[in-house]
Order: sequence, then C-alpha cells, then structure tokens
Amino acid sequence: RAPARLTVVMSQISPSYWAAINEDIEDHLRRAIPAKDPPAVYEPLGHFVFSAPRNSAPALCIAACELVGGGRDQAIVAATALQLIHAATYTRQYPPLTARAISRAAVVDRVYGPNIQLLTGDGIAPMVFEILAGSCDWSESGSERIRRVMVEMARAMGTEGWIGGQFRGLEETATAEEVSEKTEGRLHACGGACGAILGGGNEEEIEKMRKYGKLVGMVKGMSKNVFGGKENERKKEKIEELKNLAFKELKDFKGENVHEIYGFLDFEGL
Amino acid sequence: RAPARLTVVMSQISPSYWAAINEDIEDHLRRAIPAKDPPAVYEPLGHFVFSAPRNSAPALCIAACELVGGGRDQAIVAATALQLIHAATYTRQYPPLTARAISRAAVVDRVYGPNIQLLTGDGIAPMVFEILAGSCDWSESGSERIRRVMVEMARAMGTEGWIGGQFRGLEETATAEEVSEKTEGRLHACGGACGAILGGGNEEEIEKMRKYGKLVGMVKGMSKNVFGGKENERKKEKIEELKNLAFKELKDFKGENVHEIYGFLDFEGL
Repeated sequence: RAPARLTVVMSQISPSYWAAINEDIEDHLRRAIPAKDPPAVYEPLGHFVFSAPRNSAPALCIAACELVGGGRDQAIVAATALQLIHAATYTRQYPPLTARAISRAAVVDRVYGPNIQLLTGDGIAPMVFEILAGSCDWSESGSERIRRVMVEMARAMGTEGWIGGQFRGLEETATAEEVSEKTEGRLHACGGACGAILGGGNEEEIEKMRKYGKLVGMVKGMSKNVFGGKENERKKEKIEELKNLAFKELKDFKGENVHEIYGFLDFEGL
Repeated sequence: RAPARLTVVMSQISPSYWAAINEDIEDHLRRAIPAKDPPAVYEPLGHFVFSAPRNSAPALCIAACELVGGGRDQAIVAATALQLIHAATYTRQYPPLTARAISRAAVVDRVYGPNIQLLTGDGIAPMVFEILAGSCDWSESGSERIRRVMVEMARAMGTEGWIGGQFRGLEETATAEEVSEKTEGRLHACGGACGAILGGGNEEEIEKMRKYGKLVGMVKGMSKNVFGGKENERKKEKIEELKNLAFKELKDFKGENVHEIYGFLDFEGL
C-alpha cells in the first residue's frame, strides 16, 4: 500500500546524505562537549554522550531545515541538542526506573554504577539548553526561532514528551504505540518542527515536518521496543500504516531534498 | 568581626520584605505549574514542586534585581525557575544516589516510590527552561538578558554546579565547604547574578551580586549539611568568615534595599 511514487523515489536515496549529516552532528557534539577536569565528572559524561546509540531525530532536524530551504549550519546546534536529549534518556536505561528497563538490562551499559549514571543524566539535561542559549544567532528573528526551539525541546523532554512516555510505560495497559508516540514520536516531531523553524519554514511546513517526524519517530520507536503477546502481531501492520501516513505529509514539498527525506526510514545508519 | 555598620542596619530589616517576595514567587509558581491530566504524572509533579522546602536563591534573585533598580516583575520568572531547579534537586534526596543521601533518608519524602520520584525530577528540569523561554520580554535587550540567564541556570544545575557538587560529595575527601560551594553556593550565585542581569545592573553590580550570592549560599548550605568529625568544629568559624566576606560585597550599593539584602541571612523564613 505504499504510494506509487515511492518505488521511483527509493532508487534516488543517497545514504551519503544521511551519513554526512551524522558526521557533522558528531563533529559538532565533540566540540560542544568539553573534556575537562575533574575526570570523575567529565569521563562518565563523555562516555554516555558518545556511547549512546545514534538517534535519528537530530538528522531529521537538519534534513527538515534543508528541506524548507535553510542551511545546515542553522540547525546544527539544535541537532546536537537533540542528540544530548537522547544521551540523557540513555542514562536512564539501566537502573530499574521503569518496569520495562529491567527487561533491557542485559543489553545496556554497565561501565558506571547507577549513581554515576543517574547524576550524569542530570548533568546532561541542562547542557541541552546551555548549547542552545550559546548559539550565535540571537538577532531579532534568530532569537524568536531559538525561543520556539527551546520550548519544543523542553516539552519533548518533559512530562508531555519523553517523561510522559516513561510514566505511561509504567502502566500495565500501555501499548507500544502509546509509549512510542510520547518518546521517539515526540522527539522526532520536535526534530522535524525545530529544523523547519530554524530553516525559516512557514507555519504549514513546520506542522507538516512535525507530523512527519512524529510518524517516523513512532515507527523507529515501535521497531525498537519489544512488547509482549498480541501486540507484536499488530505491530507490523501498524508500522506500515504509519509509514504511509508519513509519506503523505511530504507530498507538498519540492526540491531535491524531498528524495532524501523520503528515504529516512530506509537508511540503516539512522 | 562584623562590619560596624551592621548593628545599625540589623534593626532596619523588615521580615515582611522577604515574606512578600516569597509569596509572589509561590503565586507565580502556582500559575506556572499546571494541574492537568494525567494525574499519574501531574500529581507527583505538583507534590514535589510544592512540598520542596523553600530555597532562598529565588528570593535573592528578586532582591538583587530590585537592588540594581529593576522591578520585581523583571525577575519573577527567573525566581520561579530557580525554585524549580531546587525542586528538581529535592527529588534526588531519597534514593541512594549519593552516599550522603543515605544518612538523610529518614527526614525526606516517601510519598512516591523512587521510580516516580526520579522520573518527576527528570520532568521538572526542562520546565526550568520552558518557563524562561515562555517569558514575555524577548525584545532585543530582553532576549540577550534571558540568554545569559539561561546559561547561568544551566551551569548552576549541571556539572559545574549542583551535579558537580553531588559528584564531589561522592568522594570521601569532600568537605562541607567544597560541596556547598558547588551546590547552594552556585545556586545562590546564579540567583544574585541573574537578578542583577534582569534588573539591568552593570557588569560590576552583576559580579558583586554573584559573589554575595555564592557566599550566602555557602553559609546556607554549610548550615544545612551535617558533616562528621573535625569539620564541624571548623564550620562555625568558617560560616562567620563567609558572612563577613558577603557583607563586604554590598558596601558599594546604595538605596533602601541595601538594608533588606543585609538581612538576608537573618530572616528565618529564607
């Protein structure tokens, strides 16, 4: 049930587009995260920031910025901030903060004890806003965009977003879809919307990128999380449905980057 | 060894000055923190925000703003944000995140389990920046001030501030003074500096308020934390020394509010 044009488009995806974006983000992250004293603080910080699995919301942020006509440098700080949000959530995987984390304990990081891990996550969260506030474009139009981006990011991190999803995940009745909507869905929605805001997109473009991000984020989240029983059966179907809805959000965009963003879900490095 | 003028000034302190500030902050906090659905998320949030013991850094922020000639409304959002930072740290008191927390376990909150408590803290942290970003004065001069305030707050929360202090506190060689400097010292330094920034103070005034805040914050922190052995003997002396240094930072300020800010350490409600 994929749109007919999809088959045409798929052959035009260049994995190098996404790979180059990810390289730029990692470069910027290395410059943004200091390796300084004391090592007791900054070694675990570096460890969790750089060993966190790559998240695709930062790359989407840059792609959305370019899609609406912005330059990569306009979104790079926000993309780095999104990777930090992801790294902060990564520090919350191992201790039994949620019922779900217990089942994942085998595959996650155990280099540092839970106290260091938790403190490090607490230390990463404010850096998200420090680097956004340190961003250079605080001109009149620039500051209004950064203000919006900060609100978007705070909400994606907090009780409306990631933390809301963790709370929902504590409840037995929670489905993979509900949790993914608030966690990866919201983070990618934030990535899409922030990229479009920073690239100077209009409100319609911003909302389309937000919706596209939410849908592809849910696909990423649902593909990652293993839920038990009946739900797994429904999951594959649901994922196909979400992909089709996501592609529809792109139909009014034009330009060469549309091809790239179509391929978002198919590039393995994301 | 208190400055001679101190005895004169002490009789002029009006507790109502600080009490009124605290009332304003609490009012603003009630408006900033939503009571909304789902209750599983927002009940613990409200609980931790409103049951956290009052911290004096927010009141100092407003007093510093008024001292440099600003109006209370210019600092109220930042003061509320500081109280949220404090509330977030309060959610970190009970689980054994630090060696020190264990000894305090008897006196702290146990209404919610550690998972809810930790998630709630994770949810409060981004709200600090959401309310700052939502603050109304994003005019050209206003946005530069808010940008600075955000960087100050991020650093007071993070590895240079509170979290740095928690890390230091994990080490056996840590003294009360060192930990307090990074935790309450840094939070109050942030309160003083941000108040002066938002009130339109010049760089010299901002730095004096930062130093005053750091010193009075250390006094607050050292008075609160119980450390063992020899250190307690030295503590009283050190506190007197810090108070005297703090008063010296005020000597170049003028106006009626100087009297009030002199009394900061002596008003019990703070």
